[in-house]
Amino acid sequence: MKLMTMARTKRVFTLLLRVLALGATFAAAVVMATSHEKANMFGVRFEAKFSHTPAFKYFLIANVVGSVYSFLVLFLPAENLLWRLVSALDVVMTLVLTSGVSAALAIAYVGKKGNSHAGWLPICGPVENYCHHVGGALASGFIGVLIYMILLLYSIQTNLKTQLV
Amino acid sequence: MKLMTMARTKRVFTLLLRVLALGATFAAAVVMATSHEKANMFGVRFEAKFSHTPAFKYFLIANVVGSVYSFLVLFLPAENLLWRLVSALDVVMTLVLTSGVSAALAIAYVGKKGNSHAGWLPICGPVENYCHHVGGALASGFIGVLIYMILLLYSIQTNLKTQLV
Repeated sequence: MKLMTMARTKRVFTLLLRVLALGATFAAAVVMATSHEKANMFGVRFEAKFSHTPAFKYFLIANVVGSVYSFLVLFLPAENLLWRLVSALDVVMTLVLTSGVSAALAIAYVGKKGNSHAGWLPICGPVENYCHHVGGALASGFIGVLIYMILLLYSIQTNLKTQLV
Repeated sequence: MKLMTMARTKRVFTLLLRVLALGATFAAAVVMATSHEKANMFGVRFEAKFSHTPAFKYFLIANVVGSVYSFLVLFLPAENLLWRLVSALDVVMTLVLTSGVSAALAIAYVGKKGNSHAGWLPICGPVENYCHHVGGALASGFIGVLIYMILLLYSIQTNLKTQLV
């Protein structure tokens, strides 16, 4: 009886986390995909767009995959054997999302601050809105990563607890 | 008896993986820390160094922390209660290493290919050795991440198996 209540609490808690992860990764994907701005610099018209940067494209793909995965898992019935696969896929998904956010953040940092040693100038000045947009996507993606990290830690700790009981 | 053999096989296997992870993260840290080259471009002398790039510094820190952690865990006796903490720290460590490799790879890609939209020129031409050095560090760091991913997947799957038994 006590074990059943524990299992139910665990299910509700992880379901909640998965819904939040779906929201965060979906928002990250949408905000990144819609980030573009046109501007003039030294008389030259140019457009800043996420698709000009491979790291941002990777970030978008990671978050699209992450939100599709988070969505599908919501419909997996309890006591299904596929949950074993899900706990492995959770690890892979968390790593992919982490990697997407880190790569995009590294490039966004250069976009914001530049790198004088490499001669790369910051580009945020004339396309401030674009930079804010990308920043929002990164923040949302980071929240997605945090939620998946909590899911992983929680699943590992409750597995261990069940073993100890 | 069978469970004891299983537990022992698991211990030997994970110990081996942890030694490999120590080697990979340590090599990544050393190779990154020693990467620098002096060159002339258009008559201007300049030096390429990992410490000029925040993402490479972060990669170095992540791999130093990763190798110290991998080293310390080797000396934790079996059946110690700290193993519960270790399985949580494994998750965090894997994410930190993944994030370090991804951020460094994103910047290394710009260093190699440049980004014409942002006006960032590739810098590898005159400092080819430096770029190869960084590439080696990234490869080693990536192997470290893979090993930690296998450790995580293995620990999650064997936990589940013990539950099912």
